[in-house]
Order: sequence, then C-alpha cells, then structure tokens
Amino acid sequence: MPSQIRVTTWNEYLHEKASTDVAAVYPKGIHGAIGEGLKEQLGDAVTVRSATLEEPEHGLTEEVLAETDVLTWWGHMGHARVSDDIVTRVQKRVLDGMGLLVLHSGHMSKIFIRLMGTSCTLNWRDDDTEHVWNVSPGHPIAEGVPPVFTIPNQEMYGEFFDIPQPDEQVFISSFDGGEVFRSGCCFRRGKGRIFYFSPGHETFPVYHQAEVRKILANAVRWAYQPTLSPIDLSKAPNQPLNWFRK
Amino acid sequence: MPSQIRVTTWNEYLHEKASTDVAAVYPKGIHGAIGEGLKEQLGDAVTVRSATLEEPEHGLTEEVLAETDVLTWWGHMGHARVSDDIVTRVQKRVLDGMGLLVLHSGHMSKIFIRLMGTSCTLNWRDDDTEHVWNVSPGHPIAEGVPPVFTIPNQEMYGEFFDIPQPDEQVFISSFDGGEVFRSGCCFRRGKGRIFYFSPGHETFPVYHQAEVRKILANAVRWAYQPTLSPIDLSKAPNQPLNWFRK
Amino acid sequence: MPSQIRVTTWNEYLHEKASTDVAAVYPKGIHGAIGEGLKEQLGDAVTVRSATLEEPEHGLTEEVLAETDVLTWWGHMGHARVSDDIVTRVQKRVLDGMGLLVLHSGHMSKIFIRLMGTSCTLNWRDDDTEHVWNVSPGHPIAEGVPPVFTIPNQEMYGEFFDIPQPDEQVFISSFDGGEVFRSGCCFRRGKGRIFYFSPGHETFPVYHQAEVRKILANAVRWAYQPTLSPIDLSKAPNQPLNWFRK
Amino acid sequence: MPSQIRVTTWNEYLHEKASTDVAAVYPKGIHGAIGEGLKEQLGDAVTVRSATLEEPEHGLTEEVLAETDVLTWWGHMGHARVSDDIVTRVQKRVLDGMGLLVLHSGHMSKIFIRLMGTSCTLNWRDDDTEHVWNVSPGHPIAEGVPPVFTIPNQEMYGEFFDIPQPDEQVFISSFDGGEVFRSGCCFRRGKGRIFYFSPGHETFPVYHQAEVRKILANAVRWAYQPTLSPIDLSKAPNQPLNWFRK
Repeated sequence: MPSQIRVTTWNEYLHEKASTDVAAVYPKGIHGAIGEGLKEQLGDAVTVRSATLEEPEHGLTEEVLAETDVLTWWGHMGHARVSDDIVTRVQKRVLDGMGLLVLHSGHMSKIFIRLMGTSCTLNWRDDDTEHVWNVSPGHPIAEGVPPVFTIPNQEMYGEFFDIPQPDEQVFISSFDGGEVFRSGCCFRRGKGRIFYFSPGHETFPVYHQAEVRKILANAVRWAYQPTLSPIDLSKAPNQPLNWFRK
Repeated sequence: MPSQIRVTTWNEYLHEKASTDVAAVYPKGIHGAIGEGLKEQLGDAVTVRSATLEEPEHGLTEEVLAETDVLTWWGHMGHARVSDDIVTRVQKRVLDGMGLLVLHSGHMSKIFIRLMGTSCTLNWRDDDTEHVWNVSPGHPIAEGVPPVFTIPNQEMYGEFFDIPQPDEQVFISSFDGGEVFRSGCCFRRGKGRIFYFSPGHETFPVYHQAEVRKILANAVRWAYQPTLSPIDLSKAPNQPLNWFRK
Repeated sequence: MPSQIRVTTWNEYLHEKASTDVAAVYPKGIHGAIGEGLKEQLGDAVTVRSATLEEPEHGLTEEVLAETDVLTWWGHMGHARVSDDIVTRVQKRVLDGMGLLVLHSGHMSKIFIRLMGTSCTLNWRDDDTEHVWNVSPGHPIAEGVPPVFTIPNQEMYGEFFDIPQPDEQVFISSFDGGEVFRSGCCFRRGKGRIFYFSPGHETFPVYHQAEVRKILANAVRWAYQPTLSPIDLSKAPNQPLNWFRK
Repeated sequence: MPSQIRVTTWNEYLHEKASTDVAAVYPKGIHGAIGEGLKEQLGDAVTVRSATLEEPEHGLTEEVLAETDVLTWWGHMGHARVSDDIVTRVQKRVLDGMGLLVLHSGHMSKIFIRLMGTSCTLNWRDDDTEHVWNVSPGHPIAEGVPPVFTIPNQEMYGEFFDIPQPDEQVFISSFDGGEVFRSGCCFRRGKGRIFYFSPGHETFPVYHQAEVRKILANAVRWAYQPTLSPIDLSKAPNQPLNWFRK
C-alpha cells in the first residue's frame, strides 16, 4: 500500500466560533484536532485537508470528493443547514467506495440518517464518565487499543440507539450513570465502508486522547480501499443471456 | 395470539390496467392475488385490504397505516409517482413497528431505497427459470418450504444487488442463465421488520404458485408484532441522571 | 399454532443440594423455578418437564430429546461432569431444529462451547446491580419487555465475552461497577435457534423476577418450530445432475 | 505494515501421492501451488512454509504455529486421521488471533467443524462449471476481483451448506447444473479471522487460476493481524470492583 490515503475532515465549525470555551479546547477547530491526530498516528501514509459548513458547497465540491478516500464527519447544531444535494452527493460517493467516519453528534446528521434508513435517535445527558469496551478484539479498528479505556468527561449517549444492527460491533460503552451504548459500529453500504464512533464532544478534549486518536487512525485505514470495484451502482442494466460468459 | 393480523396489500396497479396480458394473469390485480394467497394460507388469522397508487394519498392515509400491521409493496413503472411525503409516512410507521414486505420490482421503490440507504440496483433480463434455494432452514419464513423449488418463468434478477448485507439471508436463487441473487432477505429497522422477496412478475403467475404463497404468509406472520415496544424513536431525549432507576 | 411446546428444563442441580442458602432461594431447584415461570407466562401453550445431571444419561435420553421442542440449560460447577456423548447428542438435536436456551453460567457449558466454537470466557465478580437494556425493540424476545430494567443483585458478567458476534443482539447489560455485557444473544445454528441469556444466579432470585420470566417465555416461543425442515444435515450427499428439477 | 506475513500452507498431501492425475495438476502438491500463488501475488510481503498430515504432529508443532500468522488448510480423504489434540491446538491459535483460510473440501475438516459448531454438510457432484459472483464489492477480499468470473471445471458444492450465517458474505457461486453455494465466507472467532473459500479441487487446476490466486492473497492480508490484542481468552477471571479504572 504505497499510495497515500487522502482524508478530508468535515466539520460544521460552528461551536468553535460561537463559544470561547469550545475554542479553548479546539483552537484549530474539531476538524483541526482530528486531522492532527491522524497525522500524528499515520504520518506520511495520509494527507489531510478539511472542509466546513460555511464554505461554498460546504467545501464538498465534486472535485474535493473525487480526491477524497476517507471523509470524517462532525456536525451538531448545523445539521439542518446541510444541503440535501450535498448529502446526495456524499451518499453517492460512499456507495461508490469512499470511506466515511461519522463522529459523535453526527449520528443525527442527514448523511448518517440517509445511509442508515433509520431515525438514529438515542438518549443523552450532559456530562458523565465513559468506559469504552472492546468487544471485537480481532477487528482492525481495535488493533493496539486496550480491552477497555476511560474518557473522564464525555456527554452520555445511551440506548436505544436507532440504527440497523451493525455489520461489525467493535466497541460498546458504559457510563457511570449506568447507561450502555453501541459506541463503535461498522457498516458496509454499496462499495463503501462506514464507521460510527460516538466518543467526541465539543467541550471535552476527547479528540486529543491517545486511544481515540488510535481508533480514528485505525478506522481511516480500515475504510480506505486502494482499488475500487468496477461495479457501477448507478444503473440497473438489462443484461443479455450469457453476458458474463467469455 | 388471538388477534387478527391486519394486512394492507399495496400495488401501483398500472400494468394490469395497461396490458390485457397482465390483466389475464392477474384479473383482480397483483394486490388481489397476493391478498387471496394470504387468505388461503392464513384464513381468519388475517384481514386483508388493498391500496393503490391512484387513490388519494395512494390509499395510504394516516388512518389506513394506523390500522395496518403488515404492509406489502408492489411497484414498478410508477415508482417516481409515489409522493415523498407518503414515503416518509410509511417509513415512520415501519420504524414504529409495522411490518413491510417489499416484492420483486419494489427493490427500486422509494420506500425500499429510503430504508436501505443504498442504491438497490441489480442486473436483470426478461425471462428465465428461477430456482429458489433455502439457505436458512430454521428460519420462520422458510417453515414448510422445500429445500429448493422452481419458478418456470420469471424475470431474472442477478447480483450485484446493492443492499446492506441482510440481517438474515433466507433464500438465494439461481437462474438457468447462470446468475445468482439474494432473493429472500430480512432486515430489522427501528422497531419494524422488513422482508424483501424477489420472485413475482406482472406477466408470470408467480403469486399463484403454492411455495410463493406459503413464503408470503410466513413472512406476514414473521413481520407481525402483537405488542409494540413503548420506545419512542421520534425524539432524542435529554435524560437526567438515574432516569431509568426506580 | 394449536400444538403445545414441549420444554425440558435441564439443571445440573448441585448447588441447591449443597447449600441451604441456594435451596432457600430455589426450593424446587433452579429448573423448578424456570419451569414455573414458563407455566405462569405461557399456560397451556407449553408442557414442561425437567432433567438433571445425576439422572441416568443426565436425564437426556434419546427419547426425552426426541420429545423436546426447546431445552433450557443451567450448569455451573458440574460442567466437566457432563458426558461428551450426551453433548454430541444434544448438539445434533439443536442442529436438527430443537431450540436451546443457555442460561447464565451455562456460558461455559460443553454444549455452548461446542455450538459456538469459541472459548466463551468472560470477566466476572460476585455481586453487583445489573441493568438490562433492550437494543432490539422489534425482536420477538423483547416483546412486552421494558426499554430497561434492573436486577438488584446479580453476579457481574463483563466483556470481553468470547462468542461469535450474535446473529441478533437483543439485550446489553451494564453493571454499577461499570462493566458492559452482551446479555441477550440469538444464534441460528443448523436448523436450530439458540438464545443465550446471562441474568440468573443460584444465590439471587433472578428467575422469580417478572421481566426475566417474560424474556424466557418469549425466548421459548421464538426458539420453537412447529414444523422442521426436511433437510438432512447428517449427510453430504452426492447429487446427480438435475436432482432438484421435476 | 513493514513486517512479513508468515504463512503456513497445510495440506493432507494424500491425493497427489495416490494419483498420477492429481500429481500432474499439482506436481508440487496443492500446498505448493497455493504457496506459489501467494508468493506470486504478495512477493516479499509474505513468507511461506508448508506442513502436511504425515509429518510428525502433522507438521503443526507448537513452534510452527507460534511462527504462523495465517494458516491455510486443505484436506479431504484424511480428515479422520487428523489428531484431535492438533485440532485443539490449531483452534486455540485461531482464537488467539492466527488467521485461517479453509479451502474447498476442508469444509468437513475437524478444525472447521470445531470452529463453526455445525455439521458443515452440503450437496456435491463431480464436475460442473462454477461462476463466482462478488456480492460484497467493498470487501478487502474482493479487491481487484471482477464482478463475476468462471471456473471451467470444478466440483459442484451446493446448498444447503450447514454453517452459521457468515459475518461477511463475499462470494456466492452458481453452477451450470443450477445449484447455488455461499462460496466465500468470513467469520470472526475469538481474536482470529477465518475465511472459507470453496473453489479448489485436486483434479482441476483451480489454484493456478489468476482470480483464485488474487482472492487467496487478499484473504491472507485480510486475516493477518500485525498486533494481537492482549485479551487472554484462556481464562474467565474474577475481577475486583474497579479493576479497569486507573
């Protein structure tokens, strides 16, 4: 795998501009911290650029997406402001093989709801301690991750989380309040690979934590496909008899 | 389970009106044949009504859906004419626990694409012989169904079929032309259960065939829930500490 | 479904005879409490008999198994005393379509390990409070079960639990100590259906609790098949060309 | 991933010695052809050694297994001659993270049956043409593999194949006789990854075919874990309260 993985970190980038508290935790934006973590973990194996909500086309032009192997998505208060056309464009790229990492409050983003087909609702509470348990120790996203690790301050996300049963359940979290949550979930859709990871809040330094950075780096590698299948999903072709025989 | 299962058979009901050939095969409409099969198999355990595209609200008013436990869906040439609002309404009901059987060319219906999150494209050809293989002999939908059965004339549907990997793969078909197809697929979404079944074409008497009728009756029973969970998927509530403790 | 479900509740029945504390909680044995709960929930829809380790052939003769639709299994200190031949016999019946409910410490029983192919190890601790979360609200085993319920005193079972990813994950538990556990797991193997449910300890009255009784009754109904597939798994037959065509 | 993947190709190596026809197709043994294909595809990324049934301990000593990252398994007429102790040793290594590729008639090997927990029976016939369809175009094992390819001469393997539903279904095959077969199946067990691939017969040059070689090379990379999880599956430890908190 000599070629570099081209990552685009998408962030609505609103909380950081609206709150000095958030800006103090993420001075370069949440996207900046995520990109920094990926470079720290993956070095030259990865190139990182970012895109944000208030750029033209949310920074996700056809050109940018065509040059993106893996997209990370962080959104929260701006979900409704994301254009349906851009969502359709991103969905198409995922089905065509681009990797997608949906992070934390991105569970209610249009793109995640579109790809899951469910409501993606859950229960939540402001501040708690989260313990992330590895329930798939042979999974590439869990490689080098301890059997359990703790995030001291984290928004609680709890079940029932309305998603399809994940194709691969990698992490399940507990909170000191007693809730559980399927916090690391793999889905394959079309030719693309999707990883949802719930840890990561705007007011807590979760994206600076070593285990989280390791997991996101592993997920980028897992979601990346050097060579995409030639199958064209945009058509339902009428095939003559023996079309596939040589 | 003394209560009756309330089934609504939805059909776009266009081919039957446009073609005397189709009308000859399905004089009461495809919905009529499906409903007839369910009554034949399930008797008093089921009540059946129908709904069609050209009725107001496609026959799928809030009232009708509220009184429907399991909805069957057959569409083809009229997919684009189905209102997005009605699709949203049906999706909500499925996530709230209504069963859904998506049949044959319904793979490209708006409601199926919405619930799957994928393109749902496939390869196809006009006429072939289909062999339906049971790959989950302990599944309730396969109960009383032989290990393999043949549909003499059937439109070929072949892989790659762009769906999420089914939660339960019940049937896989071969065609004499050499293609394979995941023809019986279970999905759980929200609180609802979805079964996709590919056999069934407007010009062939597939819905009169005994094994197909058995499968659809089994699927109705499988998709039916006498008591729905009280979980409310329409909200992502902020929960106080210890909300779930008594 | 007019026919009755024939349940056999298997219990090693050792703790109850060795400890007056256990006997005080389960005066009729753990098997007695489980059977009582099934009768309470299912009434005439079920017949219940029991079998125990120290009976000849552990009470699981060919005749008993042939007349059993669903077997429940509770074992702990006597796992090693279960005959390999009886394990093989039970496994064969499960693959042939008998339902199996494996309970609590049965996770380390020979029959569960045989059917899973993994070590089935986990982490544990003597006493804690367990919260059982429903993560599949549309599943038949969760029907009528609240979104979450609490077992005041319960042995802690925690991840990593070495099982194959369940075909259907129905419940996940948290403990006040902070652990999580996949506590309600469905597996389909051969023609049979297997449900593992972790709540239920010899020194706590878990099998007297209403939610647990509801779940076990639901699981018995889920695991029961009125009509078994004619597929014969004991052979790998050489089939002539066109063997399946009429 | 600079380190080399250490592969051991296991073969019962009986047909080649008993039949000049087989020896003509596989002059270096089936294991030789498989190893040759891996070197051809993966070059210096892989080191390959072989082991065979009639060597002491079937060539699978503790030392050899300890130095094996991925094991491939081909067996047929000698299944019963494989020692149960060696099977237990291999199973333990798989659960501890060694990759395993089970090939063709290996579906009835002791190690596959042990890891699946099912009978692994199927239907078969001597000679047919197989078409291998990619049903998971975003899967790493399908990378660079065409949407469908044909094996001109191949033993027919047909459903029902008694395995657990695969965690990931990558390939499904059709045969000109009309059968279907789940021919490429991923399973995760313990910390290990298992791939079953059915094409490959002793009398046909299947392991010389380019697509098959590509798939086996992809599967070796998929099954390989550079760093294994520290979770110890051999114990079910009693953990004190707060054992996982720092």
